[in-house]
Amino acid sequence: MDFSSKLLENAVDAMSQLPGIGKRTALRLVLHLLKQPEAKTELLAQRLLEMRSNINFCSNCHNISDQTLCEICANPNRDRSIICVVEDIRDVMAIENTSQYRGHYHVLGGKISPMEGIGPGDLTIASLVQKVKEGDVKELIFALSSTMEGDTTNFYIFKQIEGASITTTTIARGISVGDELEYADEVTLGRSILHRIPFETSLKNN
Amino acid sequence: MDFSSKLLENAVDAMSQLPGIGKRTALRLVLHLLKQPEAKTELLAQRLLEMRSNINFCSNCHNISDQTLCEICANPNRDRSIICVVEDIRDVMAIENTSQYRGHYHVLGGKISPMEGIGPGDLTIASLVQKVKEGDVKELIFALSSTMEGDTTNFYIFKQIEGASITTTTIARGISVGDELEYADEVTLGRSILHRIPFETSLKNN
Repeated sequence: MDFSSKLLENAVDAMSQLPGIGKRTALRLVLHLLKQPEAKTELLAQRLLEMRSNINFCSNCHNISDQTLCEICANPNRDRSIICVVEDIRDVMAIENTSQYRGHYHVLGGKISPMEGIGPGDLTIASLVQKVKEGDVKELIFALSSTMEGDTTNFYIFKQIEGASITTTTIARGISVGDELEYADEVTLGRSILHRIPFETSLKNN
Repeated sequence: MDFSSKLLENAVDAMSQLPGIGKRTALRLVLHLLKQPEAKTELLAQRLLEMRSNINFCSNCHNISDQTLCEICANPNRDRSIICVVEDIRDVMAIENTSQYRGHYHVLGGKISPMEGIGPGDLTIASLVQKVKEGDVKELIFALSSTMEGDTTNFYIFKQIEGASITTTTIARGISVGDELEYADEVTLGRSILHRIPFETSLKNN
């Protein structure tokens, strides 16, 4: 792409560094900013800078938070003895939206991925293991995505806490509520049969 | 969406003001910035601010430019007597990419759209009419999109320059090169028959 202005080109280049934003989309976004009052661009820049330089992580669960402890960890009504292990803050938001979970979280910050050069040391695994070893935790729920990286991470943590007297569970995999069986993939359908639950239990949750 | 941090929420809100960026995408982009070094966010903010506050428009054609005259208008080898009227800078870039055009441009900055509250006064129509009245222009090529707004804008300009001894043309509409006739829409196919060209002419352009 040939730009008629170096300023425009620089802005488009910087914008297209964001994931999923190509040069064309970046140009569209930048031209939109040009049509808007200057204050809009200033606000965007300021909000991004403030966020990037002042953001905090909860000292307990590594969730993004403005305080030392996030709202969930600071809430005395939540069960500290259950920890749901998730990849990032979006998973916390998704599970919180269900209103089905009253325990704590632990945000790993990613998954072990040798391909991307992410090892256990890059994640917050050590502090999770520490929490388990302190003995207050009764159950660890693995809620990572079921990819090879997710499974590897689950297994690595599982080995690290071996010997601790806690229950480890993983979220149920199965057919989505409302989905037709014939369109489900084989692995998911297979698991949903293997891990079937008593019918009475399913009645209670409706 | 419930955010665990006001800083994060503000950044996501600002980002999701951009066209085509919803809250989810904005969150993904913002979390990406959080994973990158702080310098990346600073660079993005700085490039956007620089662009927004220092950008210039060519005094002749209203194209975006770092100089008073854009490269095209400043180029003595380009034909000043032909002006291609386009909606925005992306159209200039698209036509320049074809290497088929050696005239000047005139960037309107939009189309007349009563629905969006854009009247002739919001566009650079006055300076185009002025250029035509000064008498150096021989041909005006309308290259706006063929929507109701585009057609209205073309017609408005056409009426404004009525009486000036210039040729007005519009870019050819027809079947895309390589497309199958059976999949073309009726209007386009109809126009391509109505505005058929001598076969010898098509041979010359291949």
